[in-house]
Amino acid sequence: MADIRCDFNNLFTTRVGKHGLRESWLKQIEPKVKTAVRALHKHRGEGMTGWMDLPRQSDQVKKLLASARRKRGRFDDVVVLGIGGSALGTVALRGALLHPFHNLLPRRDRKGLPRLHVLDNVDPVFQSGLFDDVLDLPRTLFVVITKSGSTAETMSQFLTAYDTVAGCLGADRVAKHMIAITDAHQGHLRPVADDLGLESYAIPEGVGGRFSVLSPVGLVPAALCGMDVRGLLAGAARMDERCRVASLWRNPAALFAATQYLADRKQDARVSVMMPYAQGLKEVADWYAQLWAESLGKARDRRGREVHVGPTPVKALGVTDQHSQVQLYTEGPYDKVVTFLTVDKFRLRLPLPKVPDDLAGCEGLAYLGGQSMARLFHAEQEATRIALCEAGRMNQTISLPRPDANALGQLFYLLEMATAVAGELYDVNAFDQPGVEAGKSATYALMGRSGFEDRAREIRARKPGLKKYVL
Amino acid sequence: MADIRCDFNNLFTTRVGKHGLRESWLKQIEPKVKTAVRALHKHRGEGMTGWMDLPRQSDQVKKLLASARRKRGRFDDVVVLGIGGSALGTVALRGALLHPFHNLLPRRDRKGLPRLHVLDNVDPVFQSGLFDDVLDLPRTLFVVITKSGSTAETMSQFLTAYDTVAGCLGADRVAKHMIAITDAHQGHLRPVADDLGLESYAIPEGVGGRFSVLSPVGLVPAALCGMDVRGLLAGAARMDERCRVASLWRNPAALFAATQYLADRKQDARVSVMMPYAQGLKEVADWYAQLWAESLGKARDRRGREVHVGPTPVKALGVTDQHSQVQLYTEGPYDKVVTFLTVDKFRLRLPLPKVPDDLAGCEGLAYLGGQSMARLFHAEQEATRIALCEAGRMNQTISLPRPDANALGQLFYLLEMATAVAGELYDVNAFDQPGVEAGKSATYALMGRSGFEDRAREIRARKPGLKKYVL
Repeated sequence: MADIRCDFNNLFTTRVGKHGLRESWLKQIEPKVKTAVRALHKHRGEGMTGWMDLPRQSDQVKKLLASARRKRGRFDDVVVLGIGGSALGTVALRGALLHPFHNLLPRRDRKGLPRLHVLDNVDPVFQSGLFDDVLDLPRTLFVVITKSGSTAETMSQFLTAYDTVAGCLGADRVAKHMIAITDAHQGHLRPVADDLGLESYAIPEGVGGRFSVLSPVGLVPAALCGMDVRGLLAGAARMDERCRVASLWRNPAALFAATQYLADRKQDARVSVMMPYAQGLKEVADWYAQLWAESLGKARDRRGREVHVGPTPVKALGVTDQHSQVQLYTEGPYDKVVTFLTVDKFRLRLPLPKVPDDLAGCEGLAYLGGQSMARLFHAEQEATRIALCEAGRMNQTISLPRPDANALGQLFYLLEMATAVAGELYDVNAFDQPGVEAGKSATYALMGRSGFEDRAREIRARKPGLKKYVL
Repeated sequence: MADIRCDFNNLFTTRVGKHGLRESWLKQIEPKVKTAVRALHKHRGEGMTGWMDLPRQSDQVKKLLASARRKRGRFDDVVVLGIGGSALGTVALRGALLHPFHNLLPRRDRKGLPRLHVLDNVDPVFQSGLFDDVLDLPRTLFVVITKSGSTAETMSQFLTAYDTVAGCLGADRVAKHMIAITDAHQGHLRPVADDLGLESYAIPEGVGGRFSVLSPVGLVPAALCGMDVRGLLAGAARMDERCRVASLWRNPAALFAATQYLADRKQDARVSVMMPYAQGLKEVADWYAQLWAESLGKARDRRGREVHVGPTPVKALGVTDQHSQVQLYTEGPYDKVVTFLTVDKFRLRLPLPKVPDDLAGCEGLAYLGGQSMARLFHAEQEATRIALCEAGRMNQTISLPRPDANALGQLFYLLEMATAVAGELYDVNAFDQPGVEAGKSATYALMGRSGFEDRAREIRARKPGLKKYVL
């Protein structure tokens, strides 16, 4: 299997001029990066770095692959009930490894594989649309994913799914139509799953939501839909090897983290654009956006000092967003670093027909006839890179040899490792998310959950807004 | 029809403290805003403000509605070939006004309406997936949209579609399976459309791509899929009325533009997050991202001075991104303004079942049983607003009474008008996109288009990257 390749050339002043990075800045922080990489590997698997061990797990993988084999052909729809880190990995995997219109294919063209839905929102119209108008309950499998069992969105969907299955098929059928992925011992979902006799998988200790794609969280839906789970893990294991070396110049995760950090700190380039040139990798940018934002966006550093740091991840898509965002990227403020994700070789080139006689006079077609969509796609990607460089804008490219499971596993692990290293450079805890608590407690208060009465009073005491500010 | 409502309270220091806006700043720029609004209305329809006349167009609307009626039941798939402004409006309309799983519904449940695909990328796997595995050609209608007829992506897809239809069904059938939307007189597609005898619509003069959703560009696909085109235009016309008044305190577009501008200029809050709380409005954020980025992201002001301005639009989705981006929004740098899009009343509330005896012991469920998804959804939205205010973060809310065509028409027009006013405040041309030319010419050069030989030589002369920067 070929390695993915990271080209950092276009970040440097040599390519983009005065708004780029200087190599001397990298030299300055190199010792810090080395220390960070060594510390991560020395303590690998400890604390919240359990994700570092996922490429080499085996027991649960055997179990989930065997289970998926047994279930093949029995279900038309797999519905993931999960949100945030419990959803984004699966959405990224679906986009990258299934047919681009997988859910639209007739059953026979899906080779016995189910459609895959991820219900990562509680919009009533969205949810009812799926439950009432799409699913055929006797042929539906729900996968409920929450580590704590206290995620309001997922638990309310679990309640709905339980009630629907029990009501339509009988309470004794629930265990045939539901898989639970949750903590091995703790939380509100674990005892329920055990009581109901659900097939269940453990999210290992030390694996936070946004680092869970290579745990059962991502692998169970992947296996159910026939994706190459072993390839994913092999790719991640390969990247783990590449990222063990402490040298900045040989460790792609370290260089990724260091350059992004310097772009923020030295050039005030706080916006991190992820722009895949492959429709199938579009949702990898969503997955990255959570990983990067939630890990690095922090009010306090590890010594408790108020810092309010964190780059803002932005999702774009090539070539589509050339016609939407690239105007801003080339001409607006020098506050961005663009990371292109590209694919060297697509499954097909899709030749463009020769221009037929009917259209021979059309100047907008002449140069296209007889070429291929793949060539056009690659030309546009190269053209955007050139345009950004000419405009003095920092950019870098991560190239996947092919858009397969192995490359995707490498990519996930690369970005997870880069996030961990960046956390060290920003000196923040990359594995917590204290900033979401205020919203959660307000939700509980507004929903009347017991124990949140004080918060509810506090909310009711808020002054109403001024009428003149409402138009 | 009820008006949409904009609540700006949470932008001000009174609500969010020192990182908010002061009313005195608004007073300072009020005269400039008034001048801008008056000038826009005085010269409405002139130059590139043709979009201001779209709410009251009539001839083409009658024609496209009649055509859509005649075609009802004859097609299973409508495929839009277009990109950027030719695609984003239709994608937003599809999300907001069709069933959330419209394309997955069996034919009988779609009430004779076709599925709607927007091919806004030239990824070969994506395009071949649609053409080869999804479409039934005799029941497919293509809508090709490009004003200039020189958009490489759209023209290459047009070539493919023409060749496929002509090859499979015969050249004489092309006109039955293709609609063209392009300039009335100019460009490369107009003569082709006329020669082939295609049904065609004109993009009016003075309507740029990103301001074209209420022209045939958005309305033809909308009509073909049974959306309420008259409602859309009526909503836009209503908002046009509301935005004619020059007073900042009564014109929502003016206040939107002024506050966003001040957030950027006075508080360095350069990131403009659009966060719909409605799955169906998710793609409105994509549409807005193009509108805002491409209109305001400019290297030079109108006097030709180098300025490099432009806020960065970011797309988020409630509640989904509470579990992804809100950590950064509450704790990271004070560089964002969040605009919530909310819906007062959904089509249904989706009651949550009572907690059954089997699950009675589950603490994570007790407070949810017997409530509704709509209540949870609204509680989360309110909770996020509260959490942002408590963290001192600027936010504002645009509320749609219902997620219908009228409200959507109001919203589109509101944001278009706000963009035009913001262009005046930044003193940039909001209607051009000079920054995309460098990329376009590089694409042409790399594809060997005649006339771009010099550019090709220039590209070949670029120095190769350094090996040490490639890992």
